Amino acid sequence: MNNAIYFLHYFYVAVMLIGAFYFYIQSRDPRGVPKYEYLIAILIPIWSGAAYLSIALGQGFLERPEKTIYYARYIDWVVTTPMLLLALAFTAMFYVKKNKTIIFTLIFADVFMILTGLIADLSNGVITYIWYFLGVIALMIILYVIWYPLRKIADDGGLALSKHYRKTAAYLTIFWISYPTIWIIGPSGLGLTQVLTDVTAFIILPIFSKVGFSILDLNGLRKLEVTSTNQVSM
Amino acid sequence: MNNAIYFLHYFYVAVMLIGAFYFYIQSRDPRGVPKYEYLIAILIPIWSGAAYLSIALGQGFLERPEKTIYYARYIDWVVTTPMLLLALAFTAMFYVKKNKTIIFTLIFADVFMILTGLIADLSNGVITYIWYFLGVIALMIILYVIWYPLRKIADDGGLALSKHYRKTAAYLTIFWISYPTIWIIGPSGLGLTQVLTDVTAFIILPIFSKVGFSILDLNGLRKLEVTSTNQVSM
Amino acid sequence: MNNAIYFLHYFYVAVMLIGAFYFYIQSRDPRGVPKYEYLIAILIPIWSGAAYLSIALGQGFLERPEKTIYYARYIDWVVTTPMLLLALAFTAMFYVKKNKTIIFTLIFADVFMILTGLIADLSNGVITYIWYFLGVIALMIILYVIWYPLRKIADDGGLALSKHYRKTAAYLTIFWISYPTIWIIGPSGLGLTQVLTDVTAFIILPIFSKVGFSILDLNGLRKLEVTSTNQVSM
Repeated sequence: MNNAIYFLHYFYVAVMLIGAFYFYIQSRDPRGVPKYEYLIAILIPIWSGAAYLSIALGQGFLERPEKTIYYARYIDWVVTTPMLLLALAFTAMFYVKKNKTIIFTLIFADVFMILTGLIADLSNGVITYIWYFLGVIALMIILYVIWYPLRKIADDGGLALSKHYRKTAAYLTIFWISYPTIWIIGPSGLGLTQVLTDVTAFIILPIFSKVGFSILDLNGLRKLEVTSTNQVSM
Repeated sequence: MNNAIYFLHYFYVAVMLIGAFYFYIQSRDPRGVPKYEYLIAILIPIWSGAAYLSIALGQGFLERPEKTIYYARYIDWVVTTPMLLLALAFTAMFYVKKNKTIIFTLIFADVFMILTGLIADLSNGVITYIWYFLGVIALMIILYVIWYPLRKIADDGGLALSKHYRKTAAYLTIFWISYPTIWIIGPSGLGLTQVLTDVTAFIILPIFSKVGFSILDLNGLRKLEVTSTNQVSM
Repeated sequence: MNNAIYFLHYFYVAVMLIGAFYFYIQSRDPRGVPKYEYLIAILIPIWSGAAYLSIALGQGFLERPEKTIYYARYIDWVVTTPMLLLALAFTAMFYVKKNKTIIFTLIFADVFMILTGLIADLSNGVITYIWYFLGVIALMIILYVIWYPLRKIADDGGLALSKHYRKTAAYLTIFWISYPTIWIIGPSGLGLTQVLTDVTAFIILPIFSKVGFSILDLNGLRKLEVTSTNQVSM
């Protein structure tokens, strides 16, 4: 890696730490939003920051003759993406008992997606696209759960929650679709883009899809009318 | 691997996909059986199918001079066998609150069993049998939990549940005992059988112990009288 | 490894088995302490014993030119240390509903600490101390949760629980602080101590911090007045 890329990884770590600290400050004045919503928002950037730190320190990747495999990214994603989906599911179920079947479906499909991405990255030739395709199917299942069963639960929570959920879900959907899009045109897939462009995309995109997502989600929840129902729960 | 074995792995993947699809269709008309029972039945063949696909694609194994280690099988089992036990435990606790202590015991013993199997497979000489023996002890603990505390809970659920549980538990017991039996006489153990025989056993046996088990379990649950009690829950 | 160290590892395995058996005997006469408290106490030494057995059998470590990395220790800790914290948290919450946010914070910080320890062990030079430092921060967060939110919950449970919790938490705190202290002066850190001294420390210390901890915790809980509240539970 060249110096610019090292610098970008340290920049990412700094942004993650600031994000975690910001959510911690917010959690001191929770405004009726349960503590676990803040906890998830705090843990995501801490984990992701540590993974990127390992890349910045020259550890979290394998340099192979054909391409560099940043395996620390998968260690990041396999933990943070289920937590992002958990946060979104908890938002939809803000006023109701948490539906564990829906949450388990989301987490299973998500972990399956991340693992197929890793295997695709480690594969060569046409096999790469088989795993990539299976990962895309898993993403489609995730999006289905977000936009059908979860959206219905959010809609039943009243207009304010429904609006907030749809905005948050749309934000996540746009960023998550852009990941496989960049992957397929990047060096792990077709190899069309420059490495620097690709790495930049893996810096800017995750900041928005992690810290940006939690800012949108938490600030929306903090504005919702607090009823007695959501005080119960986990 | 020769062509016949490749073909068998693709055949296995196809059977798993058909199984997952069949349980999905059943879940559309749940007949009082909770959604998570179908979810488990669907996820097991998806995960197992993906693991076997990696073997078919020439990825999920290590060819060593002495023997081939199919590590993808362990990735399969470490996820699917806890889910099979979870399904059986949920069947026993069909009418009552789920006992997390029993479930945690089963999953711990099961993961322990799979990991000792993997270590045994990676070991040589007498050490192989030490790990194999520890795995067999874990299996005995699993069978104890299935046939004592869990059977008692099922018996308290009335004659129909008791009968269904005993049939399902007996089915699982027979197949699970056959695994270590084949292992010990196969190339990872004593090396007595032919590779093709062994691989066939790892194709036919898992179809019955995964999709076959879920067909037996779900169809039995669907015939049980639905009371108001089992509508509560997860 | 020389013979004395091999012997010490087998000795450790024997102590763990005796510990697990002792807690199993206690669980036959639970005296109002929930079954899952015994289960945790039994599973910790079983898992740890298996990890140390792999070291004794010459498997659970990598001999590198600079130093030997006992990776089986991390496989031990990543499972047993969350379970020890779970036991302590359940003790604090003995009379009340389990607070999942606190438990999740503890387990996340703990797994983070173990993984940074592993990465530190695999690192060289100044990078070692960066990961070590992050692990120490995670330990400080764990100790904060133990001594502030958890202690407050225990205090609300009456004088007897408060006293028992403080004693158990102090015991765990002393042993857990000694781990990074020995690590930093041992061969994975500064390399000041002899290997034999270090390995002995990794034999004696874990016996007290695992089996010793559970003896202290369970015997204290067994003496607490049993109210109807703690009969509910998981």
